[in-house]
Parts: sequence; structure tokens; C-alpha cells
Amino acid sequence: MSYETLLWAQDGPVLTLTLNRPDKLNAYTATMGAEIEDAFLRADADDSIRVVIVTGAGRGFCAGADISSGAGAFDSKAEGSVAFQDAGSSGRRGGGAGFVGAMFNCRKPIIAAINGAAVGVGVTLTLPMDIRICADGVKFGFVFARRGLVPEAGSAWFLPKLVGLPQALRWCLSGRLIQADEALAGGLVSEVVAPDALLVRAREIADEIAENTAPVSIALTRQMLWRFAGAPDPFELLKVDGAYAFELGGGPDVREGVAAFLEKRAPDFPGKVSTDMPSRYPWWE
Amino acid sequence: MSYETLLWAQDGPVLTLTLNRPDKLNAYTATMGAEIEDAFLRADADDSIRVVIVTGAGRGFCAGADISSGAGAFDSKAEGSVAFQDAGSSGRRGGGAGFVGAMFNCRKPIIAAINGAAVGVGVTLTLPMDIRICADGVKFGFVFARRGLVPEAGSAWFLPKLVGLPQALRWCLSGRLIQADEALAGGLVSEVVAPDALLVRAREIADEIAENTAPVSIALTRQMLWRFAGAPDPFELLKVDGAYAFELGGGPDVREGVAAFLEKRAPDFPGKVSTDMPSRYPWWE
Amino acid sequence: MSYETLLWAQDGPVLTLTLNRPDKLNAYTATMGAEIEDAFLRADADDSIRVVIVTGAGRGFCAGADISSGAGAFDSKAEGSVAFQDAGSSGRRGGGAGFVGAMFNCRKPIIAAINGAAVGVGVTLTLPMDIRICADGVKFGFVFARRGLVPEAGSAWFLPKLVGLPQALRWCLSGRLIQADEALAGGLVSEVVAPDALLVRAREIADEIAENTAPVSIALTRQMLWRFAGAPDPFELLKVDGAYAFELGGGPDVREGVAAFLEKRAPDFPGKVSTDMPSRYPWWE
Repeated sequence: MSYETLLWAQDGPVLTLTLNRPDKLNAYTATMGAEIEDAFLRADADDSIRVVIVTGAGRGFCAGADISSGAGAFDSKAEGSVAFQDAGSSGRRGGGAGFVGAMFNCRKPIIAAINGAAVGVGVTLTLPMDIRICADGVKFGFVFARRGLVPEAGSAWFLPKLVGLPQALRWCLSGRLIQADEALAGGLVSEVVAPDALLVRAREIADEIAENTAPVSIALTRQMLWRFAGAPDPFELLKVDGAYAFELGGGPDVREGVAAFLEKRAPDFPGKVSTDMPSRYPWWE
Repeated sequence: MSYETLLWAQDGPVLTLTLNRPDKLNAYTATMGAEIEDAFLRADADDSIRVVIVTGAGRGFCAGADISSGAGAFDSKAEGSVAFQDAGSSGRRGGGAGFVGAMFNCRKPIIAAINGAAVGVGVTLTLPMDIRICADGVKFGFVFARRGLVPEAGSAWFLPKLVGLPQALRWCLSGRLIQADEALAGGLVSEVVAPDALLVRAREIADEIAENTAPVSIALTRQMLWRFAGAPDPFELLKVDGAYAFELGGGPDVREGVAAFLEKRAPDFPGKVSTDMPSRYPWWE
Repeated sequence: MSYETLLWAQDGPVLTLTLNRPDKLNAYTATMGAEIEDAFLRADADDSIRVVIVTGAGRGFCAGADISSGAGAFDSKAEGSVAFQDAGSSGRRGGGAGFVGAMFNCRKPIIAAINGAAVGVGVTLTLPMDIRICADGVKFGFVFARRGLVPEAGSAWFLPKLVGLPQALRWCLSGRLIQADEALAGGLVSEVVAPDALLVRAREIADEIAENTAPVSIALTRQMLWRFAGAPDPFELLKVDGAYAFELGGGPDVREGVAAFLEKRAPDFPGKVSTDMPSRYPWWE
């Protein structure tokens, strides 16, 4: 792939996407949003990719929306605007939800390896990802209320789901910057590592998934957790997970998984996400 | 304002409401419930108020319902009853939800500065608030099952949202008293401070919000977090936050917020909650 | 009661159910699922039982589905299958949700005393329980993706509710084994104790509930927390808790609870779950 604002690098089963405007601390633009969306749609469709890592080029991760055009930066009628309708409400291919929808619907786990400052949309774009780790010294900020804006890209749903409502309220009502240790204590990231160990650690997490699990199982697990975590009760899920257990239970992935376990060897799952999702998938349509 | 059970004191942008029946450890009465509701409706409508702090007079915060009338205290047919229909199901002005509704719908952040024992309704009335801090030595109790009652004032929804379901179950099923450090570890309060530092700290938190953020942004942020934290998925929110980002992005608060940031000065946001909420607010009606 | 895979032992107000296939580390079978369901339906109906403890015989708690029949163990068409349709989607009496439904609907608190390895369905069967404690050294595993399966028994709803979505994702996407201290830090269990103290501690927790609380209050509290924790907002709950507070407030349990508190003595609540639930219970039907 060749993008203007993103680097695409696949190494074995792991795709690394790098936000790539290092002279601007990878500040977000409408082009970047569209390219993130496109990259996740491609990653989702490619069976050779098992896990996606997202990181930033240079010393920043993503410093937020590019406001180099000045006070009118968020004005959709102004030149150089980064107005966010593409991020959320009118994306073209991700189910009407832009890059948020493309990540949410993705059947591969997504790991954010946050190497530098992640502020505004620079942090909210990581919230639909499954695992967030960061380097020592990284700062975060849900700064919307200090700019006259509101939490965007679905973050008023994602953030309380990830860190709990009290922590989400404190961060979003104050708009202040957050240090890495506070992000760890609050559950925004699950690990803080030395800067030069960040991508190594992200790759370890990716490899543990890629080497041990069935692609179809992971795709279903990811969707079931994200889509039922907010359900009012478990009863709709019980119909879905019961049907999947029944259908998968007689299939080749389970035969391989149980055999590998009994034979104490690594599994080699035959099922592919492109062709072998169960008959009732996607259940929500 | 002049209330029978509450003190109303505004200092700059911060309103402090003090539960004021100190000889009864500020025990809750039906009058107190109605006055809390009234105070939050007034605070919501007054642009000069940016943040509300709630605390208690004397050595208690709120010892729970006033049961000085004896074993019939909760009997709606008995004299001196504190029967709770007003707290939840039949309040008059707060959208049919009494003081809970008035707090939930409020467009200003609410900080509980819990100075002494907060038991029964004395703690559940703090759950719709955004931030809870308490003094060393304060005790809490979700004692309903020990009195033959059930968690009231919507607390079976609020408490799991704030502290997680396992902690809510443990506290409500045992009904035992909880020390301040357990409340902190469990997430019921976010800070425990020395008693004489409590109101100073609450004011610092309030001032950080009042001095740095846009009133309209805070009003929307508070409502978006509380109302979407329990949504089944982010898709309805994406329509709302996309529309708000689009509308606000071309408006004067964002121009001021971005300009102040670029000029490294404090912002002075022109938008008022009384007149400048976006066209689609409230989105849920 | 006499079961093939379970021991039923009542001591005063506490029922202990012991998974009892110790030579198989209490591996789950379809018979065990049906017997767990039956036991919870009986416990729910028996007023002499106030709290249920679930533990395992021997050195394991439940090592997961019994796969001793080999690679076809999950194939519903194969002999010896433990295919899970009974666990979730087609249980006969528990509201169509098998043992999950029987636990979810139970009006008595349930404590898991996890004495040994709890893997696969061995851990997911504890998720509808109210309190989980475990012995030092116990291992857990949400190993589904390593077997080609998906999280079953409603666990994609229960697990994020209990430990938060980020922790649920990490455990389910990797499928790796989890040590007791990680389970404690992540909120899967609320206490880790020495192996020989496990049942003593579980009994202490059970007794604290049985000795101090009203059975009808506990039944309602348990149902309100589990059924409203996932509600989109508190407004439906406010109608329910307001009505219950009103009805219970004039009844004999509240008179006894308030009198016992004022007289500083242990309460003796007259209300029974079998006959004294409020008129609007169950509110969800």
C-alpha cells in the first residue's frame, strides 16, 4: 500500500501501520482519517494479516487535529479545515462511521503502540483498538472542552467502556494533560514500557495471538466482546454464542485445537476469516 | 436562595450547596429531597454558575433517611415518613425523577465533598454527581438490605456504572459500613484528603474546570458521557458527536479555544449554556 | 438431593454445591450442566437456603469441558460430546438459558470458592455468580480461541461487566493461563486466600449476608443490580426502585429492620422469598 500519511509494513502475520507526518507530530488531517479507514478495510480482508499494530513516526504519536491553519481549523467552510464529519458521522465505507467503524468492524485484533504525545483525536482514535501500550513519558489529553469542542469519534461511548465513567468524567471535564503513569493507573493503557522496547513488546503481544489462536475464533471473540459488552443483559448473546459453539464444535478448527492440546503441540488452524466465518455471521445484520 | 435544609452560597463561578441539618447529621427528609431538586434546577439555569459543590454542615455529610420517627419511618401512611417516592419516581419538575433527574440533566459538573458519614440515601444521592472526594475517616454504607429496603434513587444503575458490578454487589449484598480507604480502592471516591483540606481541594477541582473550559462544551460533554456510557454500541453517538463537532467547529467558542491555545493564553469563551446550546440539543428528546 | 456430578450439602442457611468428578479435575459434562441448573432452581425455591457456595472436590475446581473423548469432544454428532447448546441456548427450565439462566434468575447470592484450576467453561460458569474468591496458586484460562471455539455461556457479556472490556479482551484474545494474582488485580476474584482457609472465608462472607439482611431485600437487590447494570440510563430503574421502596416501606421487614437498628440488636426479618416478593416482581415480565 502507498499512502500519503501512513506507512504500511507487513512482517509475517503482523501489519504495522505508522502515522507518518513526523514534522507535524503526526497531526490528524481528513486525509489521514480516510487512509486509516482504508487500511483497516484492507487489513480486515487479507487473511495473511492476523494482528495490526498502530504507532507513530518520530517523537509523537498523534498531536491531535492539525490546527496549523489557525483559529478556523475546525470550520468546515474554511480552507485547511480538519472538520470531523469524516471521522464519525459520514465516513464512506466503514458502515457510515469512518475509521471508527472500520476498526470496530475489523476481525483482527488491533494494538496501539503509543510512542509519543496522543492528544485530542490522537488519543480517541486509539479507543476502538483492543490493546493500548505506551512508552515512558508519553502524555495524553482529552482536551476538547478547552478548545470549545466535544469528545469526538465515539469517545463518549468508548472511554467509559475502557476506563470507567468516573475516570472518563475527570479527564474530559478538566481537559488537562495526563502522564503515562496516570494513564496506566486509570486503565487507558495496560502497560508502560521503555521507549526502545515499545515495538518489541507490541510484537510479542501480537505474536502470542498469531501463534496460538484460530483466526475465526479471534474474529468472533473480538466482535462478541465489543458488541455485547454494552448489551442490557446476556440473553441475546446466549443465542449467538450457543449457535457458534454448536457450529464450530463440529468443524475443523476445533478438531485441530483439541488435537493440538492433547498432543501438546502448536496448533495449525485451517479456518480463514475470508471464507470460514459461521453461517450466522454477522449476527447483528 | 433560602432553603430550610440547604445552604446556597455562590463564590465566583462556583456554587456550594451545604446539607444543613447538622444536629441530625444532615439526615434526609422529603423536604431536603425537594430542595436539592430545586437547587439543581436553578443552578442549571444560571449562567454565572459553572460548577456545583455539595457538602454537609457539621460532622456528618448525610446519615441517611431521618428515622427519628421510629419503625414506621419509611411508611408513607405514617406521620414523619421519609417515604422515597419523591426521590425517584414522582418528582415534580426534574423530568419525573426528582433530585436524581435534576442532577442527571444538569449542564454543570457536580462535585461531592463528603465531609462525614454518608449512609443509605446519604451516599446514593452523591452517585449522579461527577466527582466524589471525601475526608479521612469518613464511613459509607449501602445499608438497604439491613433495613428491609432496596437500593433507591437509581443506585442499582449508578453504582455499577461507577465502581463496577462486583464491587456494587459486595457492598449492597452485605450492607456493611465501608471505610474511606475501601471507598477509594473501590472507586467510589477518587481522592481522600485531610478533613480541613476537603473544601479547598474541591474548589481547586472546580476552578480547573471553570478557568479552562467552555461552558457549552462542558454541558455537552457531561450529558454525552452519562447518556452514552450505557448505550449498546457507539453508532447513535457517532451521529450526535459528528453533528456537534460540525456545528461547534465553525462557531465562536472553537475560534476562541484554538486562538487561546495558539497564543498560549487563558481562553475567554463567549458561549452560554442558556442561549448557545447546539441546534440538536437535547438530542434524546 | 442426589446428583451424579454434584454434592449438595446444606448447613444452616448456607448451601454448598461441590462439583464432584475429582478424578477428572471436575471436568464439565452435559450432565453436570443440567445438574447445576437443577440445583439452582431448587435452591431458589427453598426459603431455608439464604446463600449458595460453589466449590470443587479434590485439587481442581473445573478443568473445562471433558475432552477425554478426543478431537471430536465438541462435535454434537460424536459420542461423548460435551456440545454446549445446553449451557446457553436451549436449557430446558432456566428460562431457555440453562445453568446460566438458573443462576441469573436466582434470588440468593452465589459465592464461588475456587479451590483449583478453572479453565474454559470451568471459569465461565462462575461469572453469573455474585462473589468469586480463590485459593493461592489457582490458574484460570479463557482458552477458547486456542481450541477453535468462542467464549460461551454468555461470558462475552459477563466478563466485561465484571473485569472491564480491556481486561476481557486481553484474556480472551490471548487465551493464555492466568495466575491468581493477575485474576485478583484484574477483578476476576475479589480475594485470594490460603487453600485451607478458602471454605472458611466463603462461609464468613455467606454468614455476614445471612445474619444481617432481609431475604426479600437481597433477592431484589441481586436482581436489580444484575438487570440494571447494563441498562442505557437510570429512568426505568427509578420507576422500579421507587415502587419497591414505597411498597416495602410500609411492610414488616422494614419495621423490623429499623427497629433492630434503633434497638442495636440483630434483626429477625419475617419476609420470605417464596411468598413475600413485592407485587411488581418480576418487573421485567
